[in-house]
Amino acid sequence: MSYPNLFSRLSTRLEPSGIRKLEQLAKDTPDLISLGPGQPDGTLFPSAEIFSALSVMFDSPDTTARALQYGQSRGNPELLALLVQRMRDQGVTCDTSNILVTAGAQQAIDLITQLLVDDGDSVLVQPNTYPGALQVFRARGANVESLADQAAPMQGRGTKFIYAMTDFQNPTGEVLSEKERALLLATARQRDTFLVEDSPYREIKFSDHDLPPSLLEMDCGNASPDTGRTLFIGSFSKIIAPGLRVGWIVGPANVISLLTLLRQGSDLQPGTLSQEIVANLLEHGIDAHVARVRQRYQARRDAMLDALQAHLFPYATWNAPEGGFFVWVKLSVPIDARELLDKAIENGVAYVPGSEFLHDTRSSSNLRLSFSIADPQCMDEAIRRLADTIDAVLKNTTSD
Amino acid sequence: MSYPNLFSRLSTRLEPSGIRKLEQLAKDTPDLISLGPGQPDGTLFPSAEIFSALSVMFDSPDTTARALQYGQSRGNPELLALLVQRMRDQGVTCDTSNILVTAGAQQAIDLITQLLVDDGDSVLVQPNTYPGALQVFRARGANVESLADQAAPMQGRGTKFIYAMTDFQNPTGEVLSEKERALLLATARQRDTFLVEDSPYREIKFSDHDLPPSLLEMDCGNASPDTGRTLFIGSFSKIIAPGLRVGWIVGPANVISLLTLLRQGSDLQPGTLSQEIVANLLEHGIDAHVARVRQRYQARRDAMLDALQAHLFPYATWNAPEGGFFVWVKLSVPIDARELLDKAIENGVAYVPGSEFLHDTRSSSNLRLSFSIADPQCMDEAIRRLADTIDAVLKNTTSD
Repeated sequence: MSYPNLFSRLSTRLEPSGIRKLEQLAKDTPDLISLGPGQPDGTLFPSAEIFSALSVMFDSPDTTARALQYGQSRGNPELLALLVQRMRDQGVTCDTSNILVTAGAQQAIDLITQLLVDDGDSVLVQPNTYPGALQVFRARGANVESLADQAAPMQGRGTKFIYAMTDFQNPTGEVLSEKERALLLATARQRDTFLVEDSPYREIKFSDHDLPPSLLEMDCGNASPDTGRTLFIGSFSKIIAPGLRVGWIVGPANVISLLTLLRQGSDLQPGTLSQEIVANLLEHGIDAHVARVRQRYQARRDAMLDALQAHLFPYATWNAPEGGFFVWVKLSVPIDARELLDKAIENGVAYVPGSEFLHDTRSSSNLRLSFSIADPQCMDEAIRRLADTIDAVLKNTTSD
Repeated sequence: MSYPNLFSRLSTRLEPSGIRKLEQLAKDTPDLISLGPGQPDGTLFPSAEIFSALSVMFDSPDTTARALQYGQSRGNPELLALLVQRMRDQGVTCDTSNILVTAGAQQAIDLITQLLVDDGDSVLVQPNTYPGALQVFRARGANVESLADQAAPMQGRGTKFIYAMTDFQNPTGEVLSEKERALLLATARQRDTFLVEDSPYREIKFSDHDLPPSLLEMDCGNASPDTGRTLFIGSFSKIIAPGLRVGWIVGPANVISLLTLLRQGSDLQPGTLSQEIVANLLEHGIDAHVARVRQRYQARRDAMLDALQAHLFPYATWNAPEGGFFVWVKLSVPIDARELLDKAIENGVAYVPGSEFLHDTRSSSNLRLSFSIADPQCMDEAIRRLADTIDAVLKNTTSD
């Protein structure tokens, strides 16, 4: 059977995720300490609370039947109402017509891209950004351009949206300042594009300082998201559990309606049971749980920073992120981060090379180190192995 | 903000599902008996078995963490292995490289369409077919053509696939004979297209007669799906529970690999907890449960056929489906099924008009009546209301 001529253009643009490949590699390598995947720590999942929610749910035939039956494409009404409340707590005034529940942030990114992008349209991204978003933009035929190269002539037909991670960004761990946010918003207004704000890490913060307002809040103030151009993406993957696949989009009601129609064709609706679990947890309050989550990741960040200080100086510089999962390391020595990776894995440590986060194919001297799942006891050993690898590569280069 | 010029072509082709609108209407109308939605009966969900699975899962920190963590894009390895076994029991020899777990059959249909269809490509469908598939085909820019109009000149660039429901079809309730299946397969081979077999109702059969082999089995015999052109879609929505969103695709490994990449961008992976639940149920065996399901729906079909016999003759003819959820009614009087619907709802009964299942905008004298959720005690009353409505419309027409 002559397959190739039966496939769509889209099929030719699909690329495997470098990070997912790395996860497999990590599993196949014994004794490897992986600082690669941005997975949440499984021992932090609120399993007692989830099982308690399930026990109540399965105690009544009515709630059981509802939790297992088809539901609305936009999401369970109870969860939508709780999300309205949650957004209000974050300074955003919206109602359920402004929200769509999605299968995690990934589905949110893909639906938005499908709704807006035709072949040759442009999407603007931060200089380093989430590879799962880059994959989607490329697959959907977008010209991906960096906000850093704004002087460059615009290719393609027009810019459809700016995609930005504002809080404890993946991969850099950075928080955009209020001024930087204002600039993004001004750019979106000037170019008359949508502004897509992806914020899965916002609640994983280590200090008591308030974060700057979300782009959505800055865009609309106290008015409805209907008055703005921002599509805010939230997710429970990092603060509750990713296996439930629950995220959401907040935006203008007419855009949300179209996204809902699109998702109806994509997979009908979000999983009902997962939504019931999340709604139950939100009803009972997750503040205490989120506080535990923050504390755990802060301790791991501290362990990583200590280890970096002990072993990686002067080979590299790095930041001290105030939240999220990642430390962004820049090599001070002339080594490509991707080439270093093979040798690092041989030495028993893995990370994600910076090139994965670039919209083009440039090499990168950056490494993304995730502290979210690495045991603090192993952290010192992991960074020592990384330093040893750099050391060996440098010696090898010198002796050549 | 000038939205319209920021939307993609796809956005202009999104249509709401008539059936989902009807569900809302039904909820808003008191005392309405709905024979509309093809929902499974919520009291049939294996809730005790599911809660038992959850109790075991949440009893161990390891299995809990696994059930809530990220998983593989293709699906949980245990579930994939169980699906291989399940397909083997149905006469299909495959391995896990031939299977992708999806968020129900709907995601399977959408992913396949995205992988194969560019604007202007053709998709061939049965004369009456699943509206959720038609929605996707149209949104993705396909020219949808009926297998019944094969003599018509082919439009567009080429036919990418034939989409067929083989077992207790939605909406007609019919089972394709082995000869009809052979003809579909021959057509797919002749035109060198894929053959998409959507079979969510296969296990809901009321007689002990064996069904004809699946198209996948006929296509590949004892050989691997790699040797054929069939993409088989299965779902647990009707036999376990739709709120879990678990379906699957079986096909050639290279096609499954591409579909897996596409789904990675779409939503990363199927829900982990849902898959663990389904895998646990399959491990313990669901035959006894499926037998209960069959028995319940058979009793409801019988109640519907009795009521039709009592009230709808001679206004209409209908079939006696040997499985599935639907009776397909053809009016013998000159009334359009869509026009009849408004009056039927006023009279307290709803159904889905046949025009919803057509690839074009023709009117239809067919009604799809779903017996899956209607209480047998209400069935007689529902059909009496339908007959009264027809009666009233006919009198009104005559007196005009």
